[in-house]
Amino acid sequence: MPDASPAKWHLAHTTWFFEAFVLPQVERTFRPFHEAYAYLFNSYYEAVGPRQPRPERGLLARPPLEEVLRYRANVDERMSAALAGPPRGEILDVVEVGIAHEEQHQELLLTDVKHAFFSNPLRPAYAPAALPARPPVAPAPPLAFVACEGGVVEIGAPAEGFAFDNERPRHRVLVEPHALATRPVTNGEWLAFMEDGGYRRPELWLSDGIAVVQQKGWQAPLYWERPDGAAWSVFTLAGPRPLDPAEPVAHVSYLEADAYARWAGARLPTEAEWESAAAGAREDGTFADEGRFHPAPASAGPGLRQLLGDVWEWTSSAYAPYPGFRKLAGALGEYNGKFMVSQVTLRGGSCATPRGHVRPTYRNFFYPDARWQFTGVRVAREPA
Amino acid sequence: MPDASPAKWHLAHTTWFFEAFVLPQVERTFRPFHEAYAYLFNSYYEAVGPRQPRPERGLLARPPLEEVLRYRANVDERMSAALAGPPRGEILDVVEVGIAHEEQHQELLLTDVKHAFFSNPLRPAYAPAALPARPPVAPAPPLAFVACEGGVVEIGAPAEGFAFDNERPRHRVLVEPHALATRPVTNGEWLAFMEDGGYRRPELWLSDGIAVVQQKGWQAPLYWERPDGAAWSVFTLAGPRPLDPAEPVAHVSYLEADAYARWAGARLPTEAEWESAAAGAREDGTFADEGRFHPAPASAGPGLRQLLGDVWEWTSSAYAPYPGFRKLAGALGEYNGKFMVSQVTLRGGSCATPRGHVRPTYRNFFYPDARWQFTGVRVAREPA
Amino acid sequence: MPDASPAKWHLAHTTWFFEAFVLPQVERTFRPFHEAYAYLFNSYYEAVGPRQPRPERGLLARPPLEEVLRYRANVDERMSAALAGPPRGEILDVVEVGIAHEEQHQELLLTDVKHAFFSNPLRPAYAPAALPARPPVAPAPPLAFVACEGGVVEIGAPAEGFAFDNERPRHRVLVEPHALATRPVTNGEWLAFMEDGGYRRPELWLSDGIAVVQQKGWQAPLYWERPDGAAWSVFTLAGPRPLDPAEPVAHVSYLEADAYARWAGARLPTEAEWESAAAGAREDGTFADEGRFHPAPASAGPGLRQLLGDVWEWTSSAYAPYPGFRKLAGALGEYNGKFMVSQVTLRGGSCATPRGHVRPTYRNFFYPDARWQFTGVRVAREPA
Amino acid sequence: MPDASPAKWHLAHTTWFFEAFVLPQVERTFRPFHEAYAYLFNSYYEAVGPRQPRPERGLLARPPLEEVLRYRANVDERMSAALAGPPRGEILDVVEVGIAHEEQHQELLLTDVKHAFFSNPLRPAYAPAALPARPPVAPAPPLAFVACEGGVVEIGAPAEGFAFDNERPRHRVLVEPHALATRPVTNGEWLAFMEDGGYRRPELWLSDGIAVVQQKGWQAPLYWERPDGAAWSVFTLAGPRPLDPAEPVAHVSYLEADAYARWAGARLPTEAEWESAAAGAREDGTFADEGRFHPAPASAGPGLRQLLGDVWEWTSSAYAPYPGFRKLAGALGEYNGKFMVSQVTLRGGSCATPRGHVRPTYRNFFYPDARWQFTGVRVAREPA
Repeated sequence: MPDASPAKWHLAHTTWFFEAFVLPQVERTFRPFHEAYAYLFNSYYEAVGPRQPRPERGLLARPPLEEVLRYRANVDERMSAALAGPPRGEILDVVEVGIAHEEQHQELLLTDVKHAFFSNPLRPAYAPAALPARPPVAPAPPLAFVACEGGVVEIGAPAEGFAFDNERPRHRVLVEPHALATRPVTNGEWLAFMEDGGYRRPELWLSDGIAVVQQKGWQAPLYWERPDGAAWSVFTLAGPRPLDPAEPVAHVSYLEADAYARWAGARLPTEAEWESAAAGAREDGTFADEGRFHPAPASAGPGLRQLLGDVWEWTSSAYAPYPGFRKLAGALGEYNGKFMVSQVTLRGGSCATPRGHVRPTYRNFFYPDARWQFTGVRVAREPA
Repeated sequence: MPDASPAKWHLAHTTWFFEAFVLPQVERTFRPFHEAYAYLFNSYYEAVGPRQPRPERGLLARPPLEEVLRYRANVDERMSAALAGPPRGEILDVVEVGIAHEEQHQELLLTDVKHAFFSNPLRPAYAPAALPARPPVAPAPPLAFVACEGGVVEIGAPAEGFAFDNERPRHRVLVEPHALATRPVTNGEWLAFMEDGGYRRPELWLSDGIAVVQQKGWQAPLYWERPDGAAWSVFTLAGPRPLDPAEPVAHVSYLEADAYARWAGARLPTEAEWESAAAGAREDGTFADEGRFHPAPASAGPGLRQLLGDVWEWTSSAYAPYPGFRKLAGALGEYNGKFMVSQVTLRGGSCATPRGHVRPTYRNFFYPDARWQFTGVRVAREPA
Repeated sequence: MPDASPAKWHLAHTTWFFEAFVLPQVERTFRPFHEAYAYLFNSYYEAVGPRQPRPERGLLARPPLEEVLRYRANVDERMSAALAGPPRGEILDVVEVGIAHEEQHQELLLTDVKHAFFSNPLRPAYAPAALPARPPVAPAPPLAFVACEGGVVEIGAPAEGFAFDNERPRHRVLVEPHALATRPVTNGEWLAFMEDGGYRRPELWLSDGIAVVQQKGWQAPLYWERPDGAAWSVFTLAGPRPLDPAEPVAHVSYLEADAYARWAGARLPTEAEWESAAAGAREDGTFADEGRFHPAPASAGPGLRQLLGDVWEWTSSAYAPYPGFRKLAGALGEYNGKFMVSQVTLRGGSCATPRGHVRPTYRNFFYPDARWQFTGVRVAREPA
Repeated sequence: MPDASPAKWHLAHTTWFFEAFVLPQVERTFRPFHEAYAYLFNSYYEAVGPRQPRPERGLLARPPLEEVLRYRANVDERMSAALAGPPRGEILDVVEVGIAHEEQHQELLLTDVKHAFFSNPLRPAYAPAALPARPPVAPAPPLAFVACEGGVVEIGAPAEGFAFDNERPRHRVLVEPHALATRPVTNGEWLAFMEDGGYRRPELWLSDGIAVVQQKGWQAPLYWERPDGAAWSVFTLAGPRPLDPAEPVAHVSYLEADAYARWAGARLPTEAEWESAAAGAREDGTFADEGRFHPAPASAGPGLRQLLGDVWEWTSSAYAPYPGFRKLAGALGEYNGKFMVSQVTLRGGSCATPRGHVRPTYRNFFYPDARWQFTGVRVAREPA
């Protein structure tokens, strides 16, 4: 899969990040651990020089894992030395980005392993004990909607504290009255969409969507299988498992999310609608820290649930700069801004995200046909 | 070029539109002119049935042109009969869409012919007399900016009168203070961008942009050539012609427009910024009716010029539904809504657009790498 | 179809051949009819300069047909003047190649038109009266084999008389005893192959063959259709027509011919086996001159039939130079020799070949997956 | 590289060969080591069932190496038990094929590792001590030709003793008088070809050849580099090394070999020419057993040298069945016969071939554009 990278590469790349962006500024006589690593482990920073093409990362039999671990130990040590002295603000800012960056790769490592293991006919399990072998038999709480009055709201991260550049500046947006679903769409609801011919009815789809469906032969979310033609099985990081209708659906693309919403007589929320609802939401979601690595059914009860955690939620907003957006200085300016075309914004984090990594202002983004992340759906609609 | 269609196809397709969407509703015993034409001349209406794939339209040696003209005469006659009786509102609505649709194809026919003729080493001229052989030697008026205060504005077409479904509903948007360029970017300004290494500096580009530049070898706008290595020539519908630095640049993609704006220390305007400025603008642009088929230099004088006509202007807004958007009923609902992903909105019409076809609320849309339309750039910036 | 060219291109290309290879040698002050035609109408002669890529030939709306006809009349006139004087041997040799070349394009024009019309859902007929609407009900004569003793035989064209360079030099080959089928494989026999699972049984196929079958979805020869799911129809230059089981099968690739032969417990003949049998064969085949443009059932009676005409017969021999092969001098040396890799030799001509064009030594060649020519199968086997 | 496989796969595949083709015939109650391995480690045997697509072999993170080694130990043990009893002829025949098969993969493993390491910017060395760091300064012996009278010769393996099915039956061929080069073409000679514009002159190339040269940007054999723009370096299994002009050129495709021969006023030999010369040749070549893993300069002295070993030699013969060819029975019938189209025959083995593996009748085969094997060139010509 061209979007995925081997685990070894993630390890080396996150190490290289600190070596490339922090150490040259603090080491008196900076010398890289290995000359070629800037080429091998640079992901996409044009300003830092040429790099190994992403689809060829899988070819790297050398350096072997032990060497990558030595590299990691070496940079850890140098970073400790660098941080031992009196703190320098501009260095700490980059270190904070480096930590957040590594958290992002912790999530990618899980989703890339999941994809690679699914491609293997042995269907190996990454964390066999993460989930009970069979899901419990318990329905999801019924879907309800919470009305939102709309008006001029503020979204985006405040100037103080850590946030990515793409979350700033905080600014005002005019939001129309609408209603937001109390929980994400479940596997059971998605099954109803499928059984109603969802993947075969062009009138439900964007033009690009039906084209992708037909070209790739999509008939269900990624990782759903029906090997015996009878009951649906879902591949998880604990291996294959019967489908739990109560869990939030995951691994659907924007194109599918949009079609589902149309089928359901609803639509996807905008970023502003989502963020203004999430600002004060309770934190009841599943994160990577639990070691479940799989979304869990929503709890019962009133109000909005699972805004943070479990599944990333597709919004209807194209990924674009906020009014007055300024990217970070230097090569780190390439971190977010240069991807602001043709992608769609997602919100809220997933069961593979480290708990402290996300916040209500956090903006994730993928192409409309991407499915290998834990991406799900929360619908919105016009007020009743 | 997979995006373009032969002239004969445009003729038959616009005819088929009336036959498919109007005549079955008004003719007592509807029979199509030819059974196979629904397959051959349907562009993308899934609800109407299967169709000739777009890239294979060029293969249609049959029906010959005479037969297509007979088809056209036949449908014209049946339409006249249909419209002779007392007007029925829902029919007239579709007829109005059919007329606007045909105007769109009048523009596409010109841009497709331009592309096909440019692909021919003979570089034939479609309208040799449309332009003087050499451009006049006159500079463009200097670039200035008009400040806009911002606030909550209304955009979109009112409920009454003809407009496409994607222009509705009229709604409020919060616009921040900004400034808008008085005229589009000129060829001379674009040349300065190129001479400053514009196409070779990754830091100016979106990630998708520099990838396309490298893959397709872009070094200048489409239709610019320098066969002798010295002076730039531009291919027009009147044939090749020396570059006029005073004319608005045309045939640049969104990816290029965005890079240019970044280079110029500016940005592209949002749809709301553009439309609220255009609402009361004077109509001084070049349209297809003049038969020039090429953008003209801006006139001197104060205020915003050429908002309508000359070149379509890329906005920074992804093509998306307005809040509360409702698509047309029936198969015509596929006209606009199903393209609302991964495309970018353009405004204002071009020198190939029929004059009466556009209006300030009109939304055109293309993929970010499209260049074969008369697409240009007007920049915006934060207030001084 | 990237292998096919528009009729207008064939007309201009065969004209250009005389202008490029003859006229510069005989006209005192040679000037081409149009500077750009060498680019537009050169097929593949590297020595003559760059050229329009084959897949883009279809884009040439200009020059229009009238201009191509003027070009043809102009070159005809200049050729007449050139040939009016006393004959010069080396010129006449090139003229003879030019005539044979034009005959080849007469055949290609028919096969390219057939392919283009088949791609058109109207399924237009090129020569509606060429064939009776329904085939007669008459079985093919039974298949028999003629034994051949083998030994050292001579094949190839003698040094005198017109032949292509690839037919020379005449040389000796050792042929083992074998037997050759009296007539080509029929549609009826091919149907039996299909009904026996021929296209679905990997053990019958070359590895490249089954890969192409699966990738392209082949289930029958090109131009066979079963629109109603019942009886097979065959598209001909006279339009669609019920399958005649008695006719030789046509439009099968080498890969299919090889699989069929394996299924039939036979094999394809080598070039030497075919040519030594054809040396004294009677001329009973169908050629383009009859205007039937479709293969006809074999006549009854003893001995080998239809070696010349009806369908090109795939041999098992890769297209390679004969021992001592010398290509023509100059640019015409590119005519045949440079294609001598990865292609397979065919023998005998077809119902689209001008009658005087082929001879027993004639070598045609196509890639193993080509199907748009009238290509059929005659099997051979070891002696009983 | 889609043609190459990971080392782990080679290990498991050669093991699977014995498990699939021998053990089911000898074990009373055959049970596979793992159900999925037939899918994972079958290379191309259609009769044995579906299999992992070759380009996706690189994705197999599971089973890990330790598990593959356990698999190998298990099958070794079962094979020992199977061979302990009284010998059964038909089993021993398959075992012999299995051993020859494993020898082939020993060679592929070396060439695949070489390719993977060359793709790595670290340019790691597989066997650092295999070669001295710099080649000795000693010229190759001058090129001479040995005349061969021709006549009816016998080629192919006799009916007794081990040989692959494609080497049989032994049969007669008529060979014309010719002359064969005493040694393979050297790097120094290839350099002269390059400096004479060899890769830029279409008149030297087959049409498919110049197309591949332009599409892939070939300017030298695979593994030649000139990083500093000055002297040529060659990547070997001992790492990068200065070019030795005296060594046989390796890693050239058939298309290049053919162009070189044309440039040199020569041609490639046919299989029959090569084999009849090799029948009594001395065995002076380099094989894998030496651990050099790189071709060595030819020794001085009279007569034909290096026919066996050092580099595989492209013949001019397409890979085709011998007259009367019969493939092996059962699934092993797929071993050779199904590849007999579009490939070219090579002879003689290379420095990566186990010494006992080849013989004068041995036929190797690759597509005309393959370069990752140790493939070189010996030219032939017509007699003086």
